[in-house]
Amino acid sequence: MTHFADSLTDRITRTSPVCVGLDPALDKLPEGIDHTPAGVAAFCRGIIDATADTACCIKPQLAYFELLGWEGMKVFWEVCDYAKTKNLLVIADGKRNDIGSTCDAYAEAYLGKGKPVDALTVNPYLGFDGIAPFIERGEKNGKGIFVLVKTSNASSGELQDLPIGDEVVHEHVAELTTAWGKTCLGPESGFSSVGAVVGATYPEELKYLRSLMPHPIFLIPGYGAQGGTAKDVAGGFHANGTGAIVNASRSIIYASKGRDWKEAAEKAAKDMAEELSKEIRK
Amino acid sequence: MTHFADSLTDRITRTSPVCVGLDPALDKLPEGIDHTPAGVAAFCRGIIDATADTACCIKPQLAYFELLGWEGMKVFWEVCDYAKTKNLLVIADGKRNDIGSTCDAYAEAYLGKGKPVDALTVNPYLGFDGIAPFIERGEKNGKGIFVLVKTSNASSGELQDLPIGDEVVHEHVAELTTAWGKTCLGPESGFSSVGAVVGATYPEELKYLRSLMPHPIFLIPGYGAQGGTAKDVAGGFHANGTGAIVNASRSIIYASKGRDWKEAAEKAAKDMAEELSKEIRK
Repeated sequence: MTHFADSLTDRITRTSPVCVGLDPALDKLPEGIDHTPAGVAAFCRGIIDATADTACCIKPQLAYFELLGWEGMKVFWEVCDYAKTKNLLVIADGKRNDIGSTCDAYAEAYLGKGKPVDALTVNPYLGFDGIAPFIERGEKNGKGIFVLVKTSNASSGELQDLPIGDEVVHEHVAELTTAWGKTCLGPESGFSSVGAVVGATYPEELKYLRSLMPHPIFLIPGYGAQGGTAKDVAGGFHANGTGAIVNASRSIIYASKGRDWKEAAEKAAKDMAEELSKEIRK
Repeated sequence: MTHFADSLTDRITRTSPVCVGLDPALDKLPEGIDHTPAGVAAFCRGIIDATADTACCIKPQLAYFELLGWEGMKVFWEVCDYAKTKNLLVIADGKRNDIGSTCDAYAEAYLGKGKPVDALTVNPYLGFDGIAPFIERGEKNGKGIFVLVKTSNASSGELQDLPIGDEVVHEHVAELTTAWGKTCLGPESGFSSVGAVVGATYPEELKYLRSLMPHPIFLIPGYGAQGGTAKDVAGGFHANGTGAIVNASRSIIYASKGRDWKEAAEKAAKDMAEELSKEIRK
């Protein structure tokens, strides 16, 4: 069994730090795709085919699958299975959080042995009780988590930037995240299976948070449609070009609404990988 | 269409503030129930039958249904539908959180028109961007949310009790929660459709938070198996015995592991309603 941080780092090195966000909203599906769960499945498989050679991982956003009821969840698991056959790592974006045996249930649901999910995003508001079951299950099964540290939305500061002494809340969460994962380092990469979500819309913070969190792998959302550029995210990487993945959803999966959507997604992912490679590994 | 806070208050008055938490873990199911999704469905229907005359609402915990894959989510929706036929309100305990169109997707998934869910628990770490779509959808469809303010677990203080100036983080979240719901008051009850989750293991805080949050309805977990008593939760209620619901999961649904589990659940719910009625409405 390979450690999650080692698998991801290896995959980043072989492909790119591009993470493709699968946010399949029915009303945004391209021409020729049915507005049904089966259509969503076909669309996601098409995006996977188009980007599997370029991206290190996909990040299906659970909300869009849950919106389709249990049929949507069936598609979610089918899509994850399909991505694994293409050697993509799968990060389930669910921002789950709970405590005790309920947290265990979420951990087993997504990070259980043999599940086609490699990592799950989690929310830290409940403290370590809401994180430990995910870490334990992850360590056992070669899987990981990404803790929300600083998100990319406008109102993220309402809680995350509240001043506590010399620092702000999200900096404290950054330190907690580092501490939570300090015994979970991959033997090859040296990175932790406890990663951090750090928004790309705050490039200066990204650099500072990198210094607070040397071991967590960063999952950086907000690229492309949300306004982040390759320059903005560069500070999230280590000097050797590892330690971070950058997510783009809409700018890749909806690169074209026409019948050329697969080709457009492939090109968008390749362009993004190239843009990133110019700014990192320097 | 009735306002969520009015529906819930009316139901509390007619029955009790007891909220029955449905946490159907396969390994805890009573004798005679199959350890399958169909078994979980039968168990949940049995608990609903046993408690529908006593409880104001049920709170299915999504983690346990997600753990069973898409078949589990099918059961989740069936159970919610069934609860509605028994006049119970349904609070989906998912602690969901996201931003923008993804948050919209969660809001529509659970608080959409015609969905058999009346309210959803949500996590405030992302700020108002992660709350507004739920409020908007709720106001449109007579549904509500419960924002995690102070949770009942041991490590909840790691973030929630961090000092910010004269107060701590969860007090600030309490003020935000009140503000977020200030235009969402039920015309009959005067309560807000933006409720608050406040753990029962901190009775003094509960009283203080009541003063900070006059309008949100409190969802108080931690009763019974988690250690909270009727005395502990009394401070969460308004003087007229409304404004709060109290959740118990294990102490009701697993009151007996034998073939008398339905009768035991019925009795546990009735006992709890009686204990609460002694401490509140004074």
